[in-house]
Amino acid sequence: MRATDRLRERMYPIKAGRYLIGLSGGADSVALLMTLLPDIRDGRIAAEAVHVNHGLRGTESDDDEKFCRELCEREGVPLTVYRADLQGKTDEDSARKARYGFFREKYKAFKADGLILAHHADDQAETFLMRLTRGAGPEGLECMREDETVEDIRILRPMLRIRREEIRAALTEDGTGWREDSTNTDTAYLRNKVRQELIPALEAISESAVDKICRTAGMIAADNDVLDAAAEKLLRENAKGSILNAAAITAEPEAVRRRVLRKWWNAEGPVLEEHALSAAQTEALTALLDVTKGKINLPGGAYAVRTGKHLILRRSEKEEAPEPAAFSGKETVFGDYRITVGPSEGNPGDGKRTQEVPDGFFEGCEIRTRRPGDRIRPFGSTGSRKLQDYLTDRRIGEPFRDQIPLICRGNEVLLVCGVGAGNIPRWNGEDHPVRITWHGETPWTE
Amino acid sequence: MRATDRLRERMYPIKAGRYLIGLSGGADSVALLMTLLPDIRDGRIAAEAVHVNHGLRGTESDDDEKFCRELCEREGVPLTVYRADLQGKTDEDSARKARYGFFREKYKAFKADGLILAHHADDQAETFLMRLTRGAGPEGLECMREDETVEDIRILRPMLRIRREEIRAALTEDGTGWREDSTNTDTAYLRNKVRQELIPALEAISESAVDKICRTAGMIAADNDVLDAAAEKLLRENAKGSILNAAAITAEPEAVRRRVLRKWWNAEGPVLEEHALSAAQTEALTALLDVTKGKINLPGGAYAVRTGKHLILRRSEKEEAPEPAAFSGKETVFGDYRITVGPSEGNPGDGKRTQEVPDGFFEGCEIRTRRPGDRIRPFGSTGSRKLQDYLTDRRIGEPFRDQIPLICRGNEVLLVCGVGAGNIPRWNGEDHPVRITWHGETPWTE
Repeated sequence: MRATDRLRERMYPIKAGRYLIGLSGGADSVALLMTLLPDIRDGRIAAEAVHVNHGLRGTESDDDEKFCRELCEREGVPLTVYRADLQGKTDEDSARKARYGFFREKYKAFKADGLILAHHADDQAETFLMRLTRGAGPEGLECMREDETVEDIRILRPMLRIRREEIRAALTEDGTGWREDSTNTDTAYLRNKVRQELIPALEAISESAVDKICRTAGMIAADNDVLDAAAEKLLRENAKGSILNAAAITAEPEAVRRRVLRKWWNAEGPVLEEHALSAAQTEALTALLDVTKGKINLPGGAYAVRTGKHLILRRSEKEEAPEPAAFSGKETVFGDYRITVGPSEGNPGDGKRTQEVPDGFFEGCEIRTRRPGDRIRPFGSTGSRKLQDYLTDRRIGEPFRDQIPLICRGNEVLLVCGVGAGNIPRWNGEDHPVRITWHGETPWTE
Repeated sequence: MRATDRLRERMYPIKAGRYLIGLSGGADSVALLMTLLPDIRDGRIAAEAVHVNHGLRGTESDDDEKFCRELCEREGVPLTVYRADLQGKTDEDSARKARYGFFREKYKAFKADGLILAHHADDQAETFLMRLTRGAGPEGLECMREDETVEDIRILRPMLRIRREEIRAALTEDGTGWREDSTNTDTAYLRNKVRQELIPALEAISESAVDKICRTAGMIAADNDVLDAAAEKLLRENAKGSILNAAAITAEPEAVRRRVLRKWWNAEGPVLEEHALSAAQTEALTALLDVTKGKINLPGGAYAVRTGKHLILRRSEKEEAPEPAAFSGKETVFGDYRITVGPSEGNPGDGKRTQEVPDGFFEGCEIRTRRPGDRIRPFGSTGSRKLQDYLTDRRIGEPFRDQIPLICRGNEVLLVCGVGAGNIPRWNGEDHPVRITWHGETPWTE
């Protein structure tokens, strides 16, 4: 019996199916491939290896590729090699992103049931410690799972309970070679420090420290399963894009509130995606739930505003406001809003969400958000007022004001979505009236 | 402004009230006392210091006590000194238990609102790392809280976010002295190793590692609040002492199951209390939920049995079985069971929980659990059988069999609680019948 076969007996079991195997040529992925060979040969699993040549280490990278080609040919495992063009980026993160891009492509083409990766117990413990010192919180401390689905790709890590040394010892015993990685990127530098200094210090305190950390990560993952599900449900029920019904979240326990807010942050668009929320920022955001008015700055130029019932996430103004749109006789789309024109229903409308006006009245108007100098002649009153004062009178929260769609002619505001009408001809039902209707959420009116 | 006053501004705020202050004479508790002095002097808090002399380090211990007496006299803070007799035990755990015993006594006498302790951020991070390497799981990783109530004593730790070095620097700046502790117990040895080797290795990776670990502990505490509450509710609803309604727990998510089982274990009596459940044992116990039959050994000679709907926690047989009790004409108590004798209700009873017999029929009988050699002549059948076979026929689960109360005359079983009757005179309603009723849970019949 080969040493890798003995290893296999302690690994997370892989069900029959079609799999991709990530193969770098390093000891871990070579051992992974060897442990899967019996299943591949007896047809229980259909597998292809995938190697990504990032070209980060010149001829070394090419030698890795050559090693993988020879190994797969010798063992009769199909291999796909991708060559990544990182466009000068040399960090581990860019490399990983590129790698997952290729995995994703191949995954679809192969109709795979899973992607099997060679992460082991030491990787897991190292990740845990790096995240712990970075203050990642329980959501980050679950680290990697033996079986998880990330963006439709099922990732299996059958060696997550096996130690690095066991893997190398098994390969050595079997006489199987591997490629050593000489990478020394910043990330690898930090990881090497954890591996070479921190883990030994932990093992001096408890021999089984790595195993214990891995178990802890697993227990934290189980905790997250419950709390994340609760948070996701609340988020579905209480968030409309960047507007959160804060009142519904406030009463929740701290652990759930924190998760709702982090998920909400993570969901809010590609601009924000790049900026992870630190523990301190999460704490500050959570604290906004307990006040009725307040504002905090967040990464990437974003900020959150608490106002009345809502918590609102805003990016910088320019990113936020949609381009002004010319009023169209049928339907105008403006950001998340639609303005439709339909036949009269025989009444003037409430002036807030619906208003009937003579056909053609809004021709030449545009739909936009407020600008300095905007004025309004409120319907039914005489004289003109600053829009600012008009909104203040109607108790429209400051953070919403930049968001409200307006129908304007030049600087004159004719309709304020959800709030009221300006200088509109008195409705008499005879001028071929049409019915203007706003569609979209108007949280500022609640 | 004294340096300790500046420290105080960053500490967890203490509300007006009556407090005890734990004072060892070390830098941390001396600084704690100094930060509280302004509040004590202006009467916002009424405080007494408590020093426990464990006598573990001979004259050094006495010098600590003397130092505390002088400090409190100088600062005008009342001090109570206790002298612990640890009866030769020198471990930190026994010392802590003794100390909390005194705190508890004084807490009641002083009608305290809280006990203020000097734990700081480094203590917290050290505890976290020791527990992490021991595999304590999320329940243990919450470590200490700034404000928590343990067995009716509210413990406040206002310095939990302050670093050890800041505390010492503040005392040095103020010219306040303290006592260095030369203790080198096993626990202190481990803690010193964490302090001197592990923390610096972590700080080499991230300067703010201690702060980050403390934040993590706080977030884990918040997670535990939610999950523990869910588990406690389930336990209240589904556990009757050592018998757990496994079916109701099985469907719960892993994080909740694990907590239910750990709480159940911790609740089960003083004998078990000494034996904490390891992560591996918890995992094995949790796995018993997913089978319908099984048994695992647990610490302290206990074991858990899964049978049908139940999970049953058993200690060694001798501890478990109550002493045999003589049958009494009115009421007999046997462990968790009561057997009462009442007037006839005009029918023979179901033979399981009630049985009518001629008055005096059970005189000289005893109530006990089964013994080797027990036999029964099942009611309505001829001939005698082994009790063992009788119970097998009736599908009574093996783990319950040692638990079932029996009414016996010598080796002959006359009534099997919840199951049936043996050789009882046919009921004719004329012999001054009395009604025998069993009271108590009979999970073996479900």
